[in-house]
Amino acid sequence: MEKKNVVIEAIRMRRSIRKFDKRPITDDEINLILESALWAPSGMNNQPWKFAIIRDPSLKESLSTLTHYGSVIQEAPVCIAVFLDHTRSYDRTKDVQAIGASIQNMLLTIHSLGLGGVWLGEILKNKEKVAELLGAGKELELMAVIAFGHPKEEMKGLGERERSGMRDPLGKKVFFNQ
Amino acid sequence: MEKKNVVIEAIRMRRSIRKFDKRPITDDEINLILESALWAPSGMNNQPWKFAIIRDPSLKESLSTLTHYGSVIQEAPVCIAVFLDHTRSYDRTKDVQAIGASIQNMLLTIHSLGLGGVWLGEILKNKEKVAELLGAGKELELMAVIAFGHPKEEMKGLGERERSGMRDPLGKKVFFNQ
Repeated sequence: MEKKNVVIEAIRMRRSIRKFDKRPITDDEINLILESALWAPSGMNNQPWKFAIIRDPSLKESLSTLTHYGSVIQEAPVCIAVFLDHTRSYDRTKDVQAIGASIQNMLLTIHSLGLGGVWLGEILKNKEKVAELLGAGKELELMAVIAFGHPKEEMKGLGERERSGMRDPLGKKVFFNQ
Repeated sequence: MEKKNVVIEAIRMRRSIRKFDKRPITDDEINLILESALWAPSGMNNQPWKFAIIRDPSLKESLSTLTHYGSVIQEAPVCIAVFLDHTRSYDRTKDVQAIGASIQNMLLTIHSLGLGGVWLGEILKNKEKVAELLGAGKELELMAVIAFGHPKEEMKGLGERERSGMRDPLGKKVFFNQ
């Protein structure tokens, strides 16, 4: 039954990329990535997300001081900060799930464009400072920063086999089947 | 620059399907859908998800009484209940985002297989009762139920143009670009 399913392949082969070369990212690429975020599902279709696009080197420098993974931010040509818009929120759990779905859409789109990216969460320890740096209103809460660019790492030889140890097997995750 | 990007197309064209015909879903299909869930990213790779597969008609009947959208559950040949495993949790916001990413992987995989599905959240109002029905341990918290099957609705004529009103434009969602 196995014919090539490009979507499943992208889901399985995507991985975090933390090193980037100097090639720039185009506006078209950024727009495709953000448009994918918009098409995530959300509870009652409330679309509770807002985005900040960060490319300016001095701004990335400032942002990089707010996380242990600052070098990733400095090297990435583009970062997208993802915020929860509390004026659109109706249920925190469902809204945060929707944010996760929108981030996954972005990561898959980044991968599908031949780019690489990483989901940065540790920076949430300074979420108020990030919001201030970006002039975000009080109604916006930082959820994640996605850093991306053209991958420097030569990962093309890394296949599914080599990555199989990175996930628990399905049998450990299904507790009921009836 | 536009050559066909199958991943982006899946992200844009996926939509909620709530009516299903009688064709069964194979075990292979269920496994592909769940394997995609496993490949979602999670903070510190903690993989905080657990799944219950529900196919038994009388069980679906019981489940259907716990939501306003019971008819969807009854008609769907398969439901997957998604739980947050609190024994794996380290940060609720990040863990719930990861759950959202894993659900999106499932929805995209369902779409890519020519199936249709819907993310049910309203049932969370009865999350304790769902957990009890499925014999879930106290450490598991219901996050969503995904109902899926072969779509009955004839939606093939519905293109991106017809759906464009369903999302706010990007310009309303980007508040910072520098």
